[in-house]
Amino acid sequence: MRFTSQTSSDGVTEQLFTLSFSSGEIPGVLWTPDGATGPRPLILMGHGGGQHKKAPGIAHRAHRFAAEAGFAVAAIDAPAHNDRPKSAEQDRLITEMRAGMQARQDVSALLAEVHALIAAQIVPEWQAVLDALAQLDHVGAGPVGYWGTSLGCGLGVPLVAAEPRIRAAVLGLNGEHQTSAEAAARITVPVEFLVQWDDERVPRATALALFDLFASPEKTLHANPGGHGDVPAFETDSSLRFFNRHLS
Amino acid sequence: MRFTSQTSSDGVTEQLFTLSFSSGEIPGVLWTPDGATGPRPLILMGHGGGQHKKAPGIAHRAHRFAAEAGFAVAAIDAPAHNDRPKSAEQDRLITEMRAGMQARQDVSALLAEVHALIAAQIVPEWQAVLDALAQLDHVGAGPVGYWGTSLGCGLGVPLVAAEPRIRAAVLGLNGEHQTSAEAAARITVPVEFLVQWDDERVPRATALALFDLFASPEKTLHANPGGHGDVPAFETDSSLRFFNRHLS
Repeated sequence: MRFTSQTSSDGVTEQLFTLSFSSGEIPGVLWTPDGATGPRPLILMGHGGGQHKKAPGIAHRAHRFAAEAGFAVAAIDAPAHNDRPKSAEQDRLITEMRAGMQARQDVSALLAEVHALIAAQIVPEWQAVLDALAQLDHVGAGPVGYWGTSLGCGLGVPLVAAEPRIRAAVLGLNGEHQTSAEAAARITVPVEFLVQWDDERVPRATALALFDLFASPEKTLHANPGGHGDVPAFETDSSLRFFNRHLS
Repeated sequence: MRFTSQTSSDGVTEQLFTLSFSSGEIPGVLWTPDGATGPRPLILMGHGGGQHKKAPGIAHRAHRFAAEAGFAVAAIDAPAHNDRPKSAEQDRLITEMRAGMQARQDVSALLAEVHALIAAQIVPEWQAVLDALAQLDHVGAGPVGYWGTSLGCGLGVPLVAAEPRIRAAVLGLNGEHQTSAEAAARITVPVEFLVQWDDERVPRATALALFDLFASPEKTLHANPGGHGDVPAFETDSSLRFFNRHLS
């Protein structure tokens, strides 16, 4: 893990890093409280489709998690996102999906295929990033949480199912698909699941069906009115408390 | 409003009262922080079917709301509950409903009728209690919240729709019925709505349909696994924060 820059604002230090892996260079960012030393809970954040590791919704929450709870927070660019290369198959499926969206067709099956393809690559990448972060003095091998909605949920479900270091997850804005159902049923850690009641991209029934699948004894669904992008600000307060309850 | 007893425990003063009204004597209880003076937010609490104003779930939450947020909290026995008399029609419907329950029939239509009948009596009773409480130095005419699930939701929906002093409501464990739909659609204050995902008494679809009906721009649904009686303890923390956000 090679750090390429370090800045600080409002009490939070932001370090850009890159990690060499079999799949290529993984570009990432780590937020920690200024002057942090010693192990602390770590939150992994998965960005939305077409976004990147420092998208405003990610950076804003990461700052709050670090400043208010003292957590370390990490995000990486998903494969085929930001400047990361697309494999031929990723490129073909993403192009096909975008064309379908423009033609206002139902692209949910294609979207699930894209998520599954990217998930197959990002799960081992996240695990390598976790290994590297655990070596850092100001992160350490403490309990890990995952926060991700939309694409971040599509990729988060197989990650949380596969990675025993993850002890709690905020997921949502995504529905059940054949590709995620089996992984969802293997998740047993506490889950807070966000649903937008009038989501124009995720049919309500598929979101409720995904919530239904988690095997977690503690899972809680938070539904709010509005579209895919309208998650209310108080849900970030709730995510923070949820991670505090399960990781601190 | 006549106070009949006063006790204190763990920093919270509990006063039993009775209020003479056209419908008879209304027995109630008021919880406030020990030594409280001056106006403060007031939470009205509606108990469940077959319960009473000091049922454990009511008294426990009332203590927390008073001790941790400094609120005043009031509960009254619902008509036909505890020692309150039943009208001939209430008696007939409740007897019929209990017989149906024993015979394991679907009593949801009867239950909705019972709720509507009791609501017609309790809404003006609550309004009279509110008038009287507003005169007290340690309660005053501050903002009012309502907390009620199950029967407490069935009676709360028409109350919250009718009473402009109520600015925020925690409701739930109840579904849409013809009798409540029209009132629900007139509610515009913030609502936090509790759903038990495996509720043996409330079909999931009717609970989601009731949430759908509220006209509130801010409404949030919290669903958790388990049956009618299994609402997790962390939802009380959430109710407390919800009232703090909207009434303080």
